[in-house]
Amino acid sequence: SFGGFNICKVLNENAKHKAIFVHGSFEGSTDDAVVILEKTPFTENTVKGILSSDTDLKLAIHNDIYKTFEAFPKPQENGIKATLIYPATSKHISKYTEQDVYVVRETAEDYRNITLPYIQAEQFSIQWVYNILDKKKEAERIVFEDVDPETGFILLPDMKWDCKQVNDLYLVAICHTRGLRSLRDLTRDHLPLLKNILEKGQNAIKEKYQVPPSKLRIYFHYQPSYYHLHVHFTHIKFDAPGSGVDRAHLIQDVIQNIEINGNFYQEASISFALRENDKLLSKFREAGKA
Amino acid sequence: SFGGFNICKVLNENAKHKAIFVHGSFEGSTDDAVVILEKTPFTENTVKGILSSDTDLKLAIHNDIYKTFEAFPKPQENGIKATLIYPATSKHISKYTEQDVYVVRETAEDYRNITLPYIQAEQFSIQWVYNILDKKKEAERIVFEDVDPETGFILLPDMKWDCKQVNDLYLVAICHTRGLRSLRDLTRDHLPLLKNILEKGQNAIKEKYQVPPSKLRIYFHYQPSYYHLHVHFTHIKFDAPGSGVDRAHLIQDVIQNIEINGNFYQEASISFALRENDKLLSKFREAGKA
Repeated sequence: SFGGFNICKVLNENAKHKAIFVHGSFEGSTDDAVVILEKTPFTENTVKGILSSDTDLKLAIHNDIYKTFEAFPKPQENGIKATLIYPATSKHISKYTEQDVYVVRETAEDYRNITLPYIQAEQFSIQWVYNILDKKKEAERIVFEDVDPETGFILLPDMKWDCKQVNDLYLVAICHTRGLRSLRDLTRDHLPLLKNILEKGQNAIKEKYQVPPSKLRIYFHYQPSYYHLHVHFTHIKFDAPGSGVDRAHLIQDVIQNIEINGNFYQEASISFALRENDKLLSKFREAGKA
Repeated sequence: SFGGFNICKVLNENAKHKAIFVHGSFEGSTDDAVVILEKTPFTENTVKGILSSDTDLKLAIHNDIYKTFEAFPKPQENGIKATLIYPATSKHISKYTEQDVYVVRETAEDYRNITLPYIQAEQFSIQWVYNILDKKKEAERIVFEDVDPETGFILLPDMKWDCKQVNDLYLVAICHTRGLRSLRDLTRDHLPLLKNILEKGQNAIKEKYQVPPSKLRIYFHYQPSYYHLHVHFTHIKFDAPGSGVDRAHLIQDVIQNIEINGNFYQEASISFALRENDKLLSKFREAGKA
């Protein structure tokens, strides 16, 4: 039980998703603890119990046909999820601490002078991507493959998707061609690759999941989380993380921009958000650009 | 109380935001009722009560330093919000019923042949916008005004923002010039207007709320919810509704696109999502384009 638990600090909270992250400790121990509390989704079963005479109601507002209440269901109808990390390290505490976010508008020059040297110096490992492309890992998860070395790709479910329902469908297409880091490397030469991923990715998803193109949001991330070109396919009704205008770029818009100007992504400015602890943000700051 | 309440149908649910929408009725009545249940955000006070010996815990997973529990707090620490609409009309029921969403990619030709005639035929009333611009309404809410008839605008908090904390800051800039319906009407002639809104809007928000430009997401909606040109200013940490890549267009990107091609928005294809009951979707369907 949480008897003897003392709250040291609320590290973060999310009012929209009804979650809170707390740093604390247990009486008689000097170890740190991190507790994450999350309200749980309603289910048809719990709703039946809640909409009964067991629930105490306190009227808040009454206006015409509209009433709002504070409602207090019985505990067993209204469980929450608790996660305890104990003993917790300072890394856990830092991981769950709210971080400031900054918008950066990267010019073409900023990309060449700041971002590209940063990507090259960090040498992020993408061995795990090559393991997928070489079928050394996750081969059984592949939904579709086009083996063409120039325009081909592998399509597979994203790790975040449990594949149980299509409401939150999330797949990723990873291109076979190596050396394309991001949007910034795309030119007119890559139009056949982009159009192939768009068309065959849509077809494969329609065939395998019966989800037609009109239900799909198909986009790149910039900045991406790894620098080997890949495309996100998510269900339009799923409010997918990273589908906001500050990170996502629809593949159809990317194709259109390159058709207007073959060097669009070598010349354009692009906005994105970076968290306080992102090394790339420090690089922009050192250069006096953030 | 909800004694005697019978559930007829779950109209919709939102697992991410922990809300559910239920159609039902009370015993002895033939009237319809709609009930909306929402879990509430945690507060520092309720967390203190929850992280105590009062809360029953049921261990779910134990792996090394990580444990997860189902937790059952006392009712008064774990209230939910209930909204009752009673008697409810069929319009209420339809409003809260889950709707299918479709992605449309509108070409320039589709805009001229389908969307523009639809906007003109519907003659959506924007009298309420003119009331703001003429200071007949909401004058006390104005945060900043530039009175120039060509490049000027009024900046005021969006109705969705309670103005209590800047974490979910949401303001709207409404341009003084009349007749600009949306993105689609913007050309090189409007660059001074766009740059003025961007610069003076940022400055006014910095002065009034101490929120600098690096914390702002500034964008148009397409389709907008009303056809008089306006710009959304939201806090980058706020996952604002309508800030997804399928509806939002950063004003900096709009300026850049028009600088590359003065007629960009008269020539480009633009993607957006429409709900099943949107009349514009029917128009696209009638034209065989959705």
